Amino acid sequence: MSTLAEQLGAFAAGTSYDDLPEAVVASVRMRVLDTLGIAVAAAPLETSRAARRWAAGQGGARGASAVGVQQRLPAGLAAFVNGVLAHSLDYDDTHLPSVLHPSATVVPAALAAAERAGADGRTLVRAIAVGLETCVRLGMAGYDEEAGNSTFFEHGQHATSICGAMGGAVAAAVVEGDEAQVVHALGVAASMASGIIEANRTGGTVKRIHCGWAAHSAVSAAELVAHGLTGPPTVLEGRFGFFQAWLHGRYDAQAVTDGLGSDWAVPGIFFKPYPANHFTHAAVDAAAALREAGIRPGDVERLVLGVPAPNLRTIGEPIEVKRAPETGYMAQFSGPYAVAVGLLGGGGLGAGLDDYTDELARDPERRAVMAKVDVVADDRCTAVFPRQFPAVLTARLHDGREVVEEVLTTRGGPERPLSFDELATKFRDNAGRTLPAEQVEALARACDDLDHCTDLAALLRPLTLVDPGHVAGSTADPPEDEVADVQP
Amino acid sequence: MSTLAEQLGAFAAGTSYDDLPEAVVASVRMRVLDTLGIAVAAAPLETSRAARRWAAGQGGARGASAVGVQQRLPAGLAAFVNGVLAHSLDYDDTHLPSVLHPSATVVPAALAAAERAGADGRTLVRAIAVGLETCVRLGMAGYDEEAGNSTFFEHGQHATSICGAMGGAVAAAVVEGDEAQVVHALGVAASMASGIIEANRTGGTVKRIHCGWAAHSAVSAAELVAHGLTGPPTVLEGRFGFFQAWLHGRYDAQAVTDGLGSDWAVPGIFFKPYPANHFTHAAVDAAAALREAGIRPGDVERLVLGVPAPNLRTIGEPIEVKRAPETGYMAQFSGPYAVAVGLLGGGGLGAGLDDYTDELARDPERRAVMAKVDVVADDRCTAVFPRQFPAVLTARLHDGREVVEEVLTTRGGPERPLSFDELATKFRDNAGRTLPAEQVEALARACDDLDHCTDLAALLRPLTLVDPGHVAGSTADPPEDEVADVQP
Repeated sequence: MSTLAEQLGAFAAGTSYDDLPEAVVASVRMRVLDTLGIAVAAAPLETSRAARRWAAGQGGARGASAVGVQQRLPAGLAAFVNGVLAHSLDYDDTHLPSVLHPSATVVPAALAAAERAGADGRTLVRAIAVGLETCVRLGMAGYDEEAGNSTFFEHGQHATSICGAMGGAVAAAVVEGDEAQVVHALGVAASMASGIIEANRTGGTVKRIHCGWAAHSAVSAAELVAHGLTGPPTVLEGRFGFFQAWLHGRYDAQAVTDGLGSDWAVPGIFFKPYPANHFTHAAVDAAAALREAGIRPGDVERLVLGVPAPNLRTIGEPIEVKRAPETGYMAQFSGPYAVAVGLLGGGGLGAGLDDYTDELARDPERRAVMAKVDVVADDRCTAVFPRQFPAVLTARLHDGREVVEEVLTTRGGPERPLSFDELATKFRDNAGRTLPAEQVEALARACDDLDHCTDLAALLRPLTLVDPGHVAGSTADPPEDEVADVQP
Repeated sequence: MSTLAEQLGAFAAGTSYDDLPEAVVASVRMRVLDTLGIAVAAAPLETSRAARRWAAGQGGARGASAVGVQQRLPAGLAAFVNGVLAHSLDYDDTHLPSVLHPSATVVPAALAAAERAGADGRTLVRAIAVGLETCVRLGMAGYDEEAGNSTFFEHGQHATSICGAMGGAVAAAVVEGDEAQVVHALGVAASMASGIIEANRTGGTVKRIHCGWAAHSAVSAAELVAHGLTGPPTVLEGRFGFFQAWLHGRYDAQAVTDGLGSDWAVPGIFFKPYPANHFTHAAVDAAAALREAGIRPGDVERLVLGVPAPNLRTIGEPIEVKRAPETGYMAQFSGPYAVAVGLLGGGGLGAGLDDYTDELARDPERRAVMAKVDVVADDRCTAVFPRQFPAVLTARLHDGREVVEEVLTTRGGPERPLSFDELATKFRDNAGRTLPAEQVEALARACDDLDHCTDLAALLRPLTLVDPGHVAGSTADPPEDEVADVQP
């Protein structure tokens, strides 16, 4: 009988590029594009500068490229910097029902390991595919169906970085390692996996480095295994293993192994079209639909935003605060603000980083729209949550009409996917903030053709020259609200 | 009301060298000596080589010294190497009742941070003192009086590295940081703290890097805080904080704060006089007392080793296996072998690394002694466990006499302390394996005079030149036994 880690190792090492379904390959290409664009956009943040200064101040080996660091860094430090940047804007992808953000750790870990090894694009695509699959399956094993919540989250543990370190280790190990090395990398990474989410409750910027530290741990684990370190085969299900330590032994083993290698979770990971809390996205869409129907703010008397009941506290309460966000960061968690963005029209795919500045959060025109918005629980929305993050927006107009826009399916998810071209629009909005247009287009093309890339260092080089001269969007710390039960 | 982290920060930043009781200063000097000696002895292990190769292969900055690495390394990597070496022989100190090993993480973290900063010996002593105190108090907060066990351990979590990362972060941060930075360092380190102990059950060498990775995390956390990163003030007691993540909110806050700054736990941390499982130590002492009374193996018909009932499975069962260890590593967990070591006489303080080789484990003379040993539960021993790891050894001699040696107080603990000179004997046995005698003596003197050291780099330089040419003692992986309920 194989252990769970051995089954994951056999899956990862036994999956060749040619075994990957086209939907998985296409999905991975898009996740690389998305992760890099977000990282470029996050480069100007103070915390990003701190990450770069720290990494560049110690690394000597020239192994891999990091956004905004001209000299190459040891692979683990490059993974750290890129992982910090990829997660800092809360703009990275989300997997449901594991309720975690896999690409911000797995993509930087795989990129660093592949570039350092001189591997080609197909090796990278394969590493990311099996790494993401491992990450989200471990997260799903910790989902409590009865409670309707992630047990990791319930314990204050950041499944994103904890499962990310494991998936990242698989991705990093599979680049050059065999099946046994992948199993050992899981065994070593399990003793490095970490992350608690108290900062979401009472402040501090540490959450911004969670995915960076996880990617650093992942690459380090794979490297130490290459140097001969070993882990226990029962690292996941053992009496003193991963599931015991994090979940006190309450886990779903089938989530790890069922359909492994045939039913891929990767294409079902939600992209985030807008740089705001995921619960607010459908509100942006619904309000944009009103705008597209010709309705203008001046036409509207009242707006009622229906959302799933559990989302109310995150994006609707207290309503006075949600109608008057003081910062761009607070605006990202405001249902009324999302309605304003949609009704007034935003950048990128409908809302870009420039739509969430501190100035716009306090803009009188937006405040006037927000003042008209009520946020209520809606049964149709609650019924499909948390598989979807829906909204039903009802507009009462001055002319007496009532217009209802229902958005029950989340844009960017598997039932309403983004095309590569659409995601490239998000990428342009993100990467174009600091990179020249021709480099932005070249990078988009390179990611679209990732399978044929033979020089990852060359692909990434323009990103190392990013000059984060200005701070884009809001860099405020999270507000001191308690975090929602589900934090996508 | 201050949070727990704020109280620890105020304690750490508010304690000057002059505030430290002499017993604390003396204890810290000895822990530095002990940690360095163990690290030198561990330098030849394959896992130690892997740690050095990995660290030296990437670091560029010349911040701090690591045992066996000629060029200086970035402080975090130096802490990693020294932390790996300090814990790899299971010869480092133990705190009860937190049941963790504090110095193997805290001392390397503090050394690296202090050397990099160009700090003096008093700053180092102070950093180690407050770091150790933080580490063991967090561990005590997780001790379940009712269950008589550490809740960390019960969950498969390695309190040694998890609490070690926190204590190490305090030690590293206090070298140059103020109170706020210490609090933030706790907040950041809490998202890096990690370590599961499944390897003790089913194999793998990963446990050997736990303290190294914790020291690396600790130094990195303090450095990132110096670069501006921040943590949540409620990182320990918060709804999504450290105690929730690891202990599901069941913790003893008083253990963290009671008597903080006045009642020091540091001097009460047990040194390990012998390189074997702590439960076997009293058996070595009791058998040595027989030898000192003139009794020789040939005089003995039968030996009955009484131990605390919970220790039976670790050092007494199955008795056939414990009487015939195949490796030096297995001998370290054998009650009968401990009796043989004491009766035949060993090196160092009574048993040194050379007494636990694979050859001696299979030595016919030792096997003959072991064949005469029974291991039984003894009520007098059980009564004082786990405050002490006692033994009562009864020898039935061929001449009809019965001699009983009771060792109810553990050597190296606060009630039966080792002097600096005694610990220097252990240091000589460890460091003298690869270092020339004059350097061994110079290092011992330097540690004895640590408070007056003005150049830590110079103090440590001889250690960087250690040439681990031969492998001392056993380097076998742990046996696939289940680990004991208490693993000292």
